[in-house]
Amino acid sequence: MRAVDVIIKKRNGNALSREEIEFFINGYVNGDIPDYQASALLMAIFLKGMDSRETADLTLAMVNSGERVDLSAIKGIKVDKHSTGGVGDTTTLIVAPLVAACNVPVAKMSGRGLGHTGGTLDKLESIPGFRVELTRDEFIAAVQAVGLAVISQSKGLVPADKMLYALRDVTGTVPSMPLIASSIMSKKIASGADAIVLDVKTGSGAFMSTVEDSFALAREMVNIGERLGIRTTALVTDMDQPLGMAVGNALEVKEAIEVLRGEITGPLADVSLTLAAYMLLTAGACRDVEEGRSMAEEALASGRGLKKLGDMIRQQGGDPRVLEDTSLLPGARTVIPVKAGQDGYISSMDTEKIGISSLVLGAGRTKKEDPIDPGVGLVMRKRVGDKVSRGDILADFYVNNEAAFPEAADIFRAAVRISAEKPESRPLIFGAVTRDGIKHLGFKP
Amino acid sequence: MRAVDVIIKKRNGNALSREEIEFFINGYVNGDIPDYQASALLMAIFLKGMDSRETADLTLAMVNSGERVDLSAIKGIKVDKHSTGGVGDTTTLIVAPLVAACNVPVAKMSGRGLGHTGGTLDKLESIPGFRVELTRDEFIAAVQAVGLAVISQSKGLVPADKMLYALRDVTGTVPSMPLIASSIMSKKIASGADAIVLDVKTGSGAFMSTVEDSFALAREMVNIGERLGIRTTALVTDMDQPLGMAVGNALEVKEAIEVLRGEITGPLADVSLTLAAYMLLTAGACRDVEEGRSMAEEALASGRGLKKLGDMIRQQGGDPRVLEDTSLLPGARTVIPVKAGQDGYISSMDTEKIGISSLVLGAGRTKKEDPIDPGVGLVMRKRVGDKVSRGDILADFYVNNEAAFPEAADIFRAAVRISAEKPESRPLIFGAVTRDGIKHLGFKP
Repeated sequence: MRAVDVIIKKRNGNALSREEIEFFINGYVNGDIPDYQASALLMAIFLKGMDSRETADLTLAMVNSGERVDLSAIKGIKVDKHSTGGVGDTTTLIVAPLVAACNVPVAKMSGRGLGHTGGTLDKLESIPGFRVELTRDEFIAAVQAVGLAVISQSKGLVPADKMLYALRDVTGTVPSMPLIASSIMSKKIASGADAIVLDVKTGSGAFMSTVEDSFALAREMVNIGERLGIRTTALVTDMDQPLGMAVGNALEVKEAIEVLRGEITGPLADVSLTLAAYMLLTAGACRDVEEGRSMAEEALASGRGLKKLGDMIRQQGGDPRVLEDTSLLPGARTVIPVKAGQDGYISSMDTEKIGISSLVLGAGRTKKEDPIDPGVGLVMRKRVGDKVSRGDILADFYVNNEAAFPEAADIFRAAVRISAEKPESRPLIFGAVTRDGIKHLGFKP
Repeated sequence: MRAVDVIIKKRNGNALSREEIEFFINGYVNGDIPDYQASALLMAIFLKGMDSRETADLTLAMVNSGERVDLSAIKGIKVDKHSTGGVGDTTTLIVAPLVAACNVPVAKMSGRGLGHTGGTLDKLESIPGFRVELTRDEFIAAVQAVGLAVISQSKGLVPADKMLYALRDVTGTVPSMPLIASSIMSKKIASGADAIVLDVKTGSGAFMSTVEDSFALAREMVNIGERLGIRTTALVTDMDQPLGMAVGNALEVKEAIEVLRGEITGPLADVSLTLAAYMLLTAGACRDVEEGRSMAEEALASGRGLKKLGDMIRQQGGDPRVLEDTSLLPGARTVIPVKAGQDGYISSMDTEKIGISSLVLGAGRTKKEDPIDPGVGLVMRKRVGDKVSRGDILADFYVNNEAAFPEAADIFRAAVRISAEKPESRPLIFGAVTRDGIKHLGFKP
């Protein structure tokens, strides 16, 4: 088999066989196939697509390019959850404890933030003492002991994805449905989950800006999971504004704690409870999503979810007193309000820009190796649809580097559009995709 | 400007600006843009195409990547001719002397054979003493002295084409109209011609196997030339069987000499006279193609064409006595006939396979650095449409390495199909493309 013939076959719009896909991925990872052939194939895939069978084969070839975590020592159906990237989205810190509190084990590998999207690891590391780098044995022991653990994705997982992603980034082949879907699913499957719930974001802060594309990606990933024998469900949820009010690492941990304490309701709590319900359902812990939702609500109301988060923090070396006293989290020297420049309604938010505003303050990274400041970020006071008057505070900025504030504030103001008319309200959860098809929810907050 | 943004623009089907094309080609040639970005752009161009303006801009950027030969010291309109590769196609050795004999200077840079197609330089080098490596000054002096010279393409011409061609070869992006057209035209334009006549082959031995694609390529190249101020004409001619009867270096030189002596008529002579007529017309040496054809026929009939070939051979260090005595050309130890295995009509020939048959005997190269044997090859005795009986000689094979003969003969026999029905005859020259449009000729031999 020759790499160029595989490229030509895809270029001509034909489906690649499993053998051809394995040959190419293996050859690329072991260095027999150079970057310039891989990038030609990626562009051909981008423009000619891949069918479901090919995408599943690609995903499996990527999984097999590295090690696959064996979680069989942990009893029960291990369910994982993945969000496709968002802003002010700290659902993992709420959902994982709620699900674990319902006796479904959560053994989760997570990533760091890049660009406008935050990363769960960065948020957890803002908790004093918290360790995200556990050995495989420590990881399994932690889940066995307390029912959940969230750690850094192992370096040996899916080397094909690391190589392909770096190449896609510089060759204009990032936003391709089969390439995105296989990248996400290969990491989840290599992480050893038995069942997966995906939270596919849609809107101005998401990978997919249209609801239609988001459902297509959701369907693609559910297809992959089911073809590879992993029960998979995907929700399509709104990212046309930040999910929570807080954007920034410690600020988001604080907000998650306040949700688990029952002090905050609203979109972040709603999406978290729905995700938890689908995780319980996908893991077979309930008969239907309504029962799952009741279980998750009960875990929250009873405080068992909060307690689970505390167990996890203690188990991973963190200081569980943050649950009682969030002032133990890193803070900022100054809080500076950003105010509305005119009267009207908040008609829309450019969520990606809000993420970048927080990044400029120091909460995020442009490049992988950039340091972050865990204490900084912003807390919004208003959401889309709210009425504002000139001079009302739109958000409080938590600032350590005051030189960065003006640019961050400008980006934020440009991201928040105020108009005379109250905008149409938009669903918070658009629907769920399972192997049985799409269930449109159109759930509004 | 970023290379990835240029890739994304083309990937999205948009036309690239001249500045973007120059940025990419210059960046690639000077090493700022890596192979993997160039191959992604090539695949995007392959699948999304380029319009005429983009293709002309690409061609100019490629020309400007290296030196451009200055032929202004040679008086008159210098006309060049290029064939898109064929088998048994030794038109240059006939056309260049005929045109020069009509007082239109021919300063031609040519290439070597690769794969199933022969190369003019290899043919010329089979003439004892002939030098194809002249200095620039020797080249110009030769054209000034005798009216024509054919030399090896200078190494400094169009480095972008050398790099892109090597990359296209391994990334499945060779058969792309704008990439083929710009590759051919950039070399012709960099070679310093004032006017160009292209011979676009069509059929089983050609780059383009359908007549429609061949006309499209012809139109594309005429567009490029005219946009860049070079008067350009293209003929579309048949390559559904070898043009001449001889395939092999010295054998083709012998056949060219016999045409110029007036001893052979037929397709090779017809196409050569027509190409010469269009070269004279394109150079402004006659009012119409009929007058050009008369001039070329007179140059042939009078022996002035043969004399010009002798002048060129002498000027470039070769032994002009080959014109009188072709046995001075390299020969083969053995001549072995290949015979028909059944009665019938020759219904078709796989011309590419016939080229490969000759290559297997030693007349051609698989890789650029392979040596060739100038004396070997084959001379066909039959053409498509001829009636044959079992045992009739189809071709004589001129062999030095007898171990290679059986495979070469097998390939040849498989390439020549014999059927009960006489096939439809096919035009020899399908048409001409000028800036005024397409003139369909449908000229049959």
